[in-house]
Amino acid sequence: MAENTGVVFLGQNKVEVQSIDFPKMQNPAGKKINHGVILKVVSTNICGSDQHMVRGRTTAPTGMVLGHEITGEIIEKGSDVEYLDVGDLVTVPFNVACGRCRACREQNTDVCLNVNSTRAGGAYGYVDMGGWVGGQAEYVMVPYADFNLIKFPNKDQAMAKIKDLTMLTDILPTGFHGAITAGVQVGSIVYIAGAGPVGLAAAASAHILGAALVMIGDMNPERLKHAKSVGFIPIDLTQSDNLGDLIAAVVGKPEVDAAVDAVGFEAKAQGKDGEEAPATVLNSLMTVVRPAGGIGIPGLYVTEDPGAKEEASKTGNLKLRFGLGWAKSHRFSTGQTPTLKYNRQLMQAILHDRLPIAKIVNATVIPLSQAAEGYKAFDSGVAKKFVLDPHGLLGKAS
Amino acid sequence: MAENTGVVFLGQNKVEVQSIDFPKMQNPAGKKINHGVILKVVSTNICGSDQHMVRGRTTAPTGMVLGHEITGEIIEKGSDVEYLDVGDLVTVPFNVACGRCRACREQNTDVCLNVNSTRAGGAYGYVDMGGWVGGQAEYVMVPYADFNLIKFPNKDQAMAKIKDLTMLTDILPTGFHGAITAGVQVGSIVYIAGAGPVGLAAAASAHILGAALVMIGDMNPERLKHAKSVGFIPIDLTQSDNLGDLIAAVVGKPEVDAAVDAVGFEAKAQGKDGEEAPATVLNSLMTVVRPAGGIGIPGLYVTEDPGAKEEASKTGNLKLRFGLGWAKSHRFSTGQTPTLKYNRQLMQAILHDRLPIAKIVNATVIPLSQAAEGYKAFDSGVAKKFVLDPHGLLGKAS
Amino acid sequence: MAENTGVVFLGQNKVEVQSIDFPKMQNPAGKKINHGVILKVVSTNICGSDQHMVRGRTTAPTGMVLGHEITGEIIEKGSDVEYLDVGDLVTVPFNVACGRCRACREQNTDVCLNVNSTRAGGAYGYVDMGGWVGGQAEYVMVPYADFNLIKFPNKDQAMAKIKDLTMLTDILPTGFHGAITAGVQVGSIVYIAGAGPVGLAAAASAHILGAALVMIGDMNPERLKHAKSVGFIPIDLTQSDNLGDLIAAVVGKPEVDAAVDAVGFEAKAQGKDGEEAPATVLNSLMTVVRPAGGIGIPGLYVTEDPGAKEEASKTGNLKLRFGLGWAKSHRFSTGQTPTLKYNRQLMQAILHDRLPIAKIVNATVIPLSQAAEGYKAFDSGVAKKFVLDPHGLLGKAS
Amino acid sequence: MAENTGVVFLGQNKVEVQSIDFPKMQNPAGKKINHGVILKVVSTNICGSDQHMVRGRTTAPTGMVLGHEITGEIIEKGSDVEYLDVGDLVTVPFNVACGRCRACREQNTDVCLNVNSTRAGGAYGYVDMGGWVGGQAEYVMVPYADFNLIKFPNKDQAMAKIKDLTMLTDILPTGFHGAITAGVQVGSIVYIAGAGPVGLAAAASAHILGAALVMIGDMNPERLKHAKSVGFIPIDLTQSDNLGDLIAAVVGKPEVDAAVDAVGFEAKAQGKDGEEAPATVLNSLMTVVRPAGGIGIPGLYVTEDPGAKEEASKTGNLKLRFGLGWAKSHRFSTGQTPTLKYNRQLMQAILHDRLPIAKIVNATVIPLSQAAEGYKAFDSGVAKKFVLDPHGLLGKAS
Repeated sequence: MAENTGVVFLGQNKVEVQSIDFPKMQNPAGKKINHGVILKVVSTNICGSDQHMVRGRTTAPTGMVLGHEITGEIIEKGSDVEYLDVGDLVTVPFNVACGRCRACREQNTDVCLNVNSTRAGGAYGYVDMGGWVGGQAEYVMVPYADFNLIKFPNKDQAMAKIKDLTMLTDILPTGFHGAITAGVQVGSIVYIAGAGPVGLAAAASAHILGAALVMIGDMNPERLKHAKSVGFIPIDLTQSDNLGDLIAAVVGKPEVDAAVDAVGFEAKAQGKDGEEAPATVLNSLMTVVRPAGGIGIPGLYVTEDPGAKEEASKTGNLKLRFGLGWAKSHRFSTGQTPTLKYNRQLMQAILHDRLPIAKIVNATVIPLSQAAEGYKAFDSGVAKKFVLDPHGLLGKAS
Repeated sequence: MAENTGVVFLGQNKVEVQSIDFPKMQNPAGKKINHGVILKVVSTNICGSDQHMVRGRTTAPTGMVLGHEITGEIIEKGSDVEYLDVGDLVTVPFNVACGRCRACREQNTDVCLNVNSTRAGGAYGYVDMGGWVGGQAEYVMVPYADFNLIKFPNKDQAMAKIKDLTMLTDILPTGFHGAITAGVQVGSIVYIAGAGPVGLAAAASAHILGAALVMIGDMNPERLKHAKSVGFIPIDLTQSDNLGDLIAAVVGKPEVDAAVDAVGFEAKAQGKDGEEAPATVLNSLMTVVRPAGGIGIPGLYVTEDPGAKEEASKTGNLKLRFGLGWAKSHRFSTGQTPTLKYNRQLMQAILHDRLPIAKIVNATVIPLSQAAEGYKAFDSGVAKKFVLDPHGLLGKAS
Repeated sequence: MAENTGVVFLGQNKVEVQSIDFPKMQNPAGKKINHGVILKVVSTNICGSDQHMVRGRTTAPTGMVLGHEITGEIIEKGSDVEYLDVGDLVTVPFNVACGRCRACREQNTDVCLNVNSTRAGGAYGYVDMGGWVGGQAEYVMVPYADFNLIKFPNKDQAMAKIKDLTMLTDILPTGFHGAITAGVQVGSIVYIAGAGPVGLAAAASAHILGAALVMIGDMNPERLKHAKSVGFIPIDLTQSDNLGDLIAAVVGKPEVDAAVDAVGFEAKAQGKDGEEAPATVLNSLMTVVRPAGGIGIPGLYVTEDPGAKEEASKTGNLKLRFGLGWAKSHRFSTGQTPTLKYNRQLMQAILHDRLPIAKIVNATVIPLSQAAEGYKAFDSGVAKKFVLDPHGLLGKAS
Repeated sequence: MAENTGVVFLGQNKVEVQSIDFPKMQNPAGKKINHGVILKVVSTNICGSDQHMVRGRTTAPTGMVLGHEITGEIIEKGSDVEYLDVGDLVTVPFNVACGRCRACREQNTDVCLNVNSTRAGGAYGYVDMGGWVGGQAEYVMVPYADFNLIKFPNKDQAMAKIKDLTMLTDILPTGFHGAITAGVQVGSIVYIAGAGPVGLAAAASAHILGAALVMIGDMNPERLKHAKSVGFIPIDLTQSDNLGDLIAAVVGKPEVDAAVDAVGFEAKAQGKDGEEAPATVLNSLMTVVRPAGGIGIPGLYVTEDPGAKEEASKTGNLKLRFGLGWAKSHRFSTGQTPTLKYNRQLMQAILHDRLPIAKIVNATVIPLSQAAEGYKAFDSGVAKKFVLDPHGLLGKAS
């Protein structure tokens, strides 16, 4: 049991599955902890934000073990873990959180004040997020386990839906946070920018929140086709640089009740020959969101972007048409999702067959050993969400 | 056009369709108004609260024209009506509201301060609600039309869904208000007390709000059977006087996240030989709602109940086990729904095929001339919601 | 340091300061814990809910150490306590909470699911609240310390305001929760039932929330006089059995925007010769709260009341005029306060001189050794809030 | 009575009091209306946003009558006005609103959909806001009077506080909206950017909302001195270009709970030789607002700014360091205030002596005839809020 294997970042566009250390019950500063558990990883997904690092858009150090979307079984627990047991199957929020600071007490686990010495908020296997070892691996350590983890009520039932439940770790609550902060309600007309996994999760969230109609825009024909096949209205952004026109063609007027930016800083200008244009998504959303409407922004915007083409973007500056948003009394909500605020209720929705998220994001299971191929395929824009299966348990399950 | 026909209350258990006055552009005090419209009634439903009056549980005067669930076409408008036109097909909230007082400005149209001289809140054709003439008729007058009415965007599309849209006037927003104030969210486990039309509407509302599971309790086998046939879990209250046991049999523990009382003061004691026991629903809900949970109470409780069997109940007193609710930090939300707060979004959900409310409440169209039979059948507890069709337009539509 | 002294309940109307065990790092089940701290108690208040036990209105066992309003200095900490240190001066919420269950994660620490095996919610030194040893003592153990405790930023500054800060443990957040759940906002006209310490804290809370006018009703002339002296409008309930008349005499109409029940189940009927009448406060509040208004109910209602005079009340039943509340669309919020949701912000208000709560509740410091006299005086209805000073530190401070 | 006088915009930096038309009961399209009233203007204030027009930063047409901050007495009413009477003293929200559209029904009167044919939202005497005649005049017409107007309960009491109550029309609810949307709560540490009238109103709002500490930053020494004299902590932005340092000097760390941008698009770069730099305020606020905190933005940002120095700014583009806000999970709330959502409660606070806004903004009464001098003095940055007194009623009142 003292062996481990994981996905290691080795520099721009290079990841490799290598032998790595078996998890220790200690925090990144090397202090022994009793509140952690060690998990045998049952599933762990590749995330679009992993891609940001792998593409070299961040300052991620080589040698880092990747992976922050983790579901697993407890194989060892610290002496302070009181409400979980060895053998429990649990979902891990991607945000590492202490459960003891003001932010965690107020349900803002995305900006926990204690788990990262350089800024608020921590994550596993992620640059600048506290140095917690990633979980695209056979085994991983999760601190503050009683606070962070949610146990699935029934293990067999959970394994039968594991491709759905694995989405609880990040993209489903990320999309849900986007929809919630955009103000999606029963009967809303909603537009989601971006048909990647987060966009699809936002669309699924809008749907279960009761949205009347969910449109989802992208320039990738495969992703649009998939979005349509799971019930959303595709908006092909290559057809016009005027988002309002495309929306009006569907709903009769160039206006939606709420919108979600599931793209972020790597946005490309809308229209046929899209160049990178970081503010293009937000600026287009302001043109279509109704007066007094909200814009949820789960798409990642970074403080430093060394790989940006525009000079201003390198320090996280965007040329926003803020005056337009102001004239329409828009509300902009940003940041990572506080996963723990939503994952219990989303788990319930999945377990009771209300939220077929695996189908919606096209969950595709591959062995851990094929992680590099998964990263490559995902980067190419396929309409798939890759789920790594370190112990071959998912093949059996599904 | 100067003739009219409507359902008139003639005393306990007696209603009759009679010739009545054609609507006038004046308020109940006889003052001429310019903000009203006259509607040709397209559909108008029989409501459980109409039954309270007809059963003699209120002080409703004989001669009153009944009916507060009205959908219709504008055939005449006052000079101050600016944003509606003759020919528009509109939904009428059952609450008469001025749109000009503090309550209306704050979206509490259920307690409008101006339309009823004796208490807050008005309604059409209802005892103690301001004297506005009812709409179970061929024609009816609606005041403050620009504020109160919502026009369906497309008349043909609306007529194709008129059996759903007719539920926007009362029971759908009433059930929705119950679910919202109970705190139903995505993933909630929900219990609805009462499988009549309001209970079914609350269940449908819980569903579109994303509830993981919706149970609905009653003692009427036909209603339970219907509830099951439209996708809810029936709870047969004749099987036990312990609601927790019945719920545990479904979800594994005697607890729900949120509950709705869709029964009200005419409740019968749970269990095989139910006697009337006004507090029985609320007391049972406190036993099953989780700590920190909410109870939405759209079911009607009255200030005076001359027909009550218990002495205390005659003045609206209930023997509530309030200490239990307090120990669990429950939140109780009462009162009529502010229809206008919800009907636009619910209309959107219906128009976009998200809320098949007609099927869920088993909407059953009958001619206005058969209203008396409808009242009788509804009183017998059939699993139907009767929709009166004064001009024979629905038969054609569906 | 291995010695300890505390207030022990010895049966109806009998408490005594006795030698008690020095706190152990274990939970009530006897299990060793590493997440606790031992505090040297700096101040600990006598609470009205202690009185309920001492008066024999509960099933509290003799021998129990009382006290749940605790402020102290850490003298020892478990190995899992990471963010607090020996020497820190901290405020202890009266609710014992694990920080790891659904309720705690959602800020409902009043109904923590893990700290009490018999129901949701725990407290120190209180009947049916989990068996945690009380803190009217020299030393006390606090579990889940990182989660439960808030450290005062500056010890000297805190000791200078210790008579105010000691109110953060219970009555101030209790009153604040009452005001918040009643819907008090900037400009509200507010009525508080009960001029004891919780009522005064609710009034102080309403004031800092921006209430335009705060009335406070009682039958005790000394308490009314004190309430007036600290800036609230006293309502003398012995002058009329019609609360609306008394309120109309102040504000011109018999109506308030929001009301707080700071009395609870031991209520006496309003008017000159008040008999105990448990529902009298709630019933009177329904007559005066505006339509669509809220009633916050921090006053304690119990599930069992063996000492009640009315038969129904013995099982926590109240004769509520619920139909009146329903007709006015009232919202009733019950239960203990989740202290941790509010104490940080209230601490900030105190430290920045915005909330002189010690003066408002007339904080009166006595030595721990005089606790019995304090209980007796408080029971007599004096307008004082007694603060016990186990180590003689407050005398020096103030 | 058929004569009238008002402040007319005559081109850049030129306003003049001239004879103007007496108000007509018609809307800007020339249609006769019955829902309006004609007011004898009792007080009407000069606003910072009037200055934007007068400085030539907008496309305001010459000949326009200015003024949107209006308090007055009804001298004539249309036939559809039911709940107001001639002689009533009323406060007029600066937003013209119909009370009949979705936005108005949902309390978003700032973006009423019916009163302006070119965009959402209307105002009196303002460019691009629907063409409603301004109220810096002796007489003015207010449409939809029952919906828009709030009557002061007692005329004498109101006249005694008229210098406070005149602030209800715009700046007080504008500042309040800023504080509310920033998330100011009891105990918050707050920073307000800009010590002009709106900034002072935001500070006053933060105070009555219970803020522990309110800082207010500016570069104008006179305004800072005044801010200090009315109880706020002045932050002299000429002392450093690092806002965090200035804040840390007051509160010990470079962080606040909530912040308000009361400056808008005409911002100058912080530090000694401030050049115009439209994004400087928002960018600096992101550096100091705590993770998960909110930024309220009542300061005006425009869609077109022909007078801007930066090219991008001419079309309302800002170079925002959005990545920083995103990393801290900030929430940005923009737009005009929906005055009617707040003015009733703020009126109550003023009438009950809780909100001395006239003193806080240094209300300075001048005759209507001296309006041009008032504009000039205000433009020079004096720490005064000018109140025009068209009929000489305020001199008598105060």
